[in-house]
Amino acid sequence: MRDDSGVIQTFADRFLAVRERVGPLVWGLDPSAEILCEWGLGDNPDGLDRFVDIVVDVATDTVGLVKPQSAFYERHGWRGIRSLTRLCADARSAGLLVILDAKRGDVGSTNEAYAEAYLGKDAPIEADALTVHPYLGLAAMGSLFRRAHEAGSCLLVVTRSSNHEGRGVQAAETRPGVTVEVDLLCQIGQLNAELAPGRIGPVGAVIGPREWETPLDLVSPHGIYLAPGVGAQGATVDDVVRVFAACPDRVMPSASRLLLSHGPDPEALRDGVSWLADEFRSRLMATGTDSEC
Amino acid sequence: MRDDSGVIQTFADRFLAVRERVGPLVWGLDPSAEILCEWGLGDNPDGLDRFVDIVVDVATDTVGLVKPQSAFYERHGWRGIRSLTRLCADARSAGLLVILDAKRGDVGSTNEAYAEAYLGKDAPIEADALTVHPYLGLAAMGSLFRRAHEAGSCLLVVTRSSNHEGRGVQAAETRPGVTVEVDLLCQIGQLNAELAPGRIGPVGAVIGPREWETPLDLVSPHGIYLAPGVGAQGATVDDVVRVFAACPDRVMPSASRLLLSHGPDPEALRDGVSWLADEFRSRLMATGTDSEC
Repeated sequence: MRDDSGVIQTFADRFLAVRERVGPLVWGLDPSAEILCEWGLGDNPDGLDRFVDIVVDVATDTVGLVKPQSAFYERHGWRGIRSLTRLCADARSAGLLVILDAKRGDVGSTNEAYAEAYLGKDAPIEADALTVHPYLGLAAMGSLFRRAHEAGSCLLVVTRSSNHEGRGVQAAETRPGVTVEVDLLCQIGQLNAELAPGRIGPVGAVIGPREWETPLDLVSPHGIYLAPGVGAQGATVDDVVRVFAACPDRVMPSASRLLLSHGPDPEALRDGVSWLADEFRSRLMATGTDSEC
Repeated sequence: MRDDSGVIQTFADRFLAVRERVGPLVWGLDPSAEILCEWGLGDNPDGLDRFVDIVVDVATDTVGLVKPQSAFYERHGWRGIRSLTRLCADARSAGLLVILDAKRGDVGSTNEAYAEAYLGKDAPIEADALTVHPYLGLAAMGSLFRRAHEAGSCLLVVTRSSNHEGRGVQAAETRPGVTVEVDLLCQIGQLNAELAPGRIGPVGAVIGPREWETPLDLVSPHGIYLAPGVGAQGATVDDVVRVFAACPDRVMPSASRLLLSHGPDPEALRDGVSWLADEFRSRLMATGTDSEC
């Protein structure tokens, strides 16, 4: 994305700007069957379209970032993807940053197709950031990283997920004493050093706000972090503050079901989202706590 | 899927039937920008739709299984997903088995949404088999496994991918001497033993037909294997025969770019696909080589 003078603005620049304005909270837009029914919209493509109208309108006043989870749109087939397309375009037009939570990842030629699908101005569904999974290796993601860098977008590599079932793979050792997640953060640091020396780079990570056996160095990778799972998945504001104590200015905490449970009344939804946005704003942006990392 | 008497037919049953009829080759349907241009169709949703018409028609005469790679449809946005939907429906109506190569995987509630999107008769895009990635843990995939079992579909867990960049994560050790990929095959065996005791179960694996440092026990998991990467990614028919020597009756070798390079002329395409189908049929189905595993 370019600013008024035609210079590419990085995702990190845009995140810092919206953070300054409304705080770092990401609103997860997960229209499950339960939510569509509870809201009285109907679990069908029309109901999904009405969900999109409501949440984009409320998000514009309350948060700086939204995170649609692709699965909940895919379950309505191509009509659901059409709603997701509109959500992304309308949200970005309203000045929101869109993190598409799709956890894509494959061999190199396929990753190039995913890059074309979601990153840059020619993408049919343009997102500001895209989540990817690293099971087939970060070294196969060259086209995703390049395109994110060129477009001023961000790749968020799922490194430590918010669920305990992921520990088996994520805490496995690539060599004695070095876990998969530690190794990934190291690779992310190298990528950012190459792509954006001395600055926050285009490759970030998804880090669930929970503490496990291995401490992580979140300063050296010079990336932005998505911290999902606040609320329904058990993580609290305190957990986010503690886990990201070394770089509170680079964490994007995300809550989905907790916030959607306030709907469908727009005023109640607005109040619920604003409350959590204010909470993160005050806890992560208190004077003097910002790191220089 | 039910047979004429209303009994659920498993994916393994259906695979064995098409294998008997035309052999085990899977035709990978990856309409990259290069292929759409080389074929003179245009790299746009209309070109993609014409691609679907051509390949479904040719596949019906030549192979038993097709494997669309979701990324190449996603790069045309919702219209591309509409083409993918039609591809899956038309191919299944013509008696082909459809393996949707999407490598989805997430936390439990999101995996339930993916299950609803792609498995079972109410899914908007129903596939016979779906590839998934295990980075967030197989234990988070209960709803995917249950739905696949109930619908007679198959989950193919990417375990050892066809690209070397995946070795870092896949060969990491979950405990001394046990790699991630070995541990996954063990979990798959346990799942199949629970869901389909004494039979080939609904959980299979993606195993690239290459030999690495760790040998794999492909007999005990009692699953079906997808072996991608024949041709353009460097694997040969010999590689497939060697890597799956212990269970030649349960491997589905897949080629994409190699076969699409014969198009767009339907006759040339038919000849090219038939040649490789015959090759695998004769090499993997020679009398006496089938295992009982």
